[in-house]
Amino acid sequence: MGEKLGEGKTKEVFDMDEDHVLLKFKDSITAGDGLKKDEMEGKGILNAQTSAILFRLLEKEGIKTHYVGMKDERTMIVKKLSMIPVEVVARNIATGSIVKRLPIKEGEVFNPPIVEFFLKDDARHDPLLNYSHMEYFKLMNRKEANESEEIIKRAINVISDYIKKRGLILFDLKLEFGRIDGEMIVGDEISLDSMRVRSPNGDIYDKDLYRRGESLEKVKSRYQEFLRLISN
Amino acid sequence: MGEKLGEGKTKEVFDMDEDHVLLKFKDSITAGDGLKKDEMEGKGILNAQTSAILFRLLEKEGIKTHYVGMKDERTMIVKKLSMIPVEVVARNIATGSIVKRLPIKEGEVFNPPIVEFFLKDDARHDPLLNYSHMEYFKLMNRKEANESEEIIKRAINVISDYIKKRGLILFDLKLEFGRIDGEMIVGDEISLDSMRVRSPNGDIYDKDLYRRGESLEKVKSRYQEFLRLISN
Ligand SMILES: Nc1ncnc2c1ncn2[C@@H]1O[C@H](COP(=O)(O)OP(=O)(O)OP(=O)(O)O)[C@@H](O)[C@H]1O
Ligand SMILES: Nc1ncnc2c1ncn2[C@@H]1O[C@H](COP(=O)(O)OP(=O)(O)OP(=O)(O)O)[C@@H](O)[C@H]1O
Ligand SMILES: [Mg+2]
Ligand SMILES: [Mg+2]
Repeated sequence: MGEKLGEGKTKEVFDMDEDHVLLKFKDSITAGDGLKKDEMEGKGILNAQTSAILFRLLEKEGIKTHYVGMKDERTMIVKKLSMIPVEVVARNIATGSIVKRLPIKEGEVFNPPIVEFFLKDDARHDPLLNYSHMEYFKLMNRKEANESEEIIKRAINVISDYIKKRGLILFDLKLEFGRIDGEMIVGDEISLDSMRVRSPNGDIYDKDLYRRGESLEKVKSRYQEFLRLISN
Repeated sequence: MGEKLGEGKTKEVFDMDEDHVLLKFKDSITAGDGLKKDEMEGKGILNAQTSAILFRLLEKEGIKTHYVGMKDERTMIVKKLSMIPVEVVARNIATGSIVKRLPIKEGEVFNPPIVEFFLKDDARHDPLLNYSHMEYFKLMNRKEANESEEIIKRAINVISDYIKKRGLILFDLKLEFGRIDGEMIVGDEISLDSMRVRSPNGDIYDKDLYRRGESLEKVKSRYQEFLRLISN
């Protein structure tokens, strides 16, 4: 692999060529803005494979992503993006931070989905941003913000339908965007670290298991089961 | 006065006729979502008079407000609005909650102003709202949200210019809107409870004095001085 360009909590970024980087998915699992942290053997492979399937699904539906292919089982070849440090979240069903912040009850259904933007800033616990903030910080202008809202609404619909056919429910989805020549492209990852997936009887398949203190074995077996379900 | 229709932390609302209500400004002063509370004799008169001057100023500049006239020194005659329980905030200079939430330093200058929407919900400490939340809660649609942003940007400019001529600086401004026949109208009050005013050498004229624990005498004398300054 080329020079290491950077590293986050769950992935390393390596130089590949002028237009591409490699994303190597680590086995670390973190929560609470990095305060809780563990190693879950094989997790990087699971998230890389899950992301690959979901990126291909979005591409098939005409949504532009950074995905190019896999270099090995935990390393993704992606288009090099100029990343925007914002988490774009779409919600079909209320759970997590939104039920604490707003007068919204656990399980409330949003149709159309609610879309939110959060600044990636662990020290400030990823504060909510509005269009006005994003313009001031030069993160996204209004046109780009609107565009990313339209893209994530399409993405949550596509992924929702796909996993519904496999008996599961997508509660919410987080995407990160970057630009190539000014165009908004879906980057980063789409895994159980970045969406909430439940079964109709309430079984949790996503990182909330880890947030709630379930064993790493339990978390891993659900991540494995989910990958198996979406693999065909 | 007619039947009492409602009462908030600082004003009582009385029925007047089909299209009008009376807003009677009380002497109470509160902070911290109502947790800190005192009586400041004469404060209702000061805020009613200050609001009257600033509503007239906005009207003169073509901004539609609920202001009709004064019934007595602390009671305003206003158009009856269907109020939207949202605080619309415009900021010229950073201070207060924004420097705690976001990577923004005390005193940073915003040009154009940053505009934010907060749900009036003391128990939840007035959480930040985006357009998507406001649509879900049926508070404002996007057109109305854009409209209120344009209105508050014009209002902060007008009031800023007016008090600059009197040697003071407007840091930020909070407005509340209501509707008549679907049209967005500035309602509620515009006083030192709802904007931050400083002198060039840093003297505080607004409710931050009270929030920071200054004596009621000190707070009152600054409210009086401000009213005197804007009175001509
Ligand atoms: N297509 C891409 N091109 C360039 N960088 C990318 C691409 N996709 C993702 N990245 C970057 O890879 C880095 C590592 O990801 P990781 O998820 O581990 O970071 P993180 O812990 O979320 O936080 P941080 O972004 O603060 O490092 C991130 O900085 C992310 O922005
Ligand atoms: N033009 C208007 N028509 C009808 N009601 C109004 C108008 N202007 C203001 N009000 C209402 O007057 C009430 C009293 O105001 P006050 O500022 O005391 O309330 P508050 O403490 O801010 O909070 P709350 O709105 O929760 O009562 C508010 O409910 C406000 O919405
Ligand atoms: Mg990440
Ligand atoms: Mg009020």
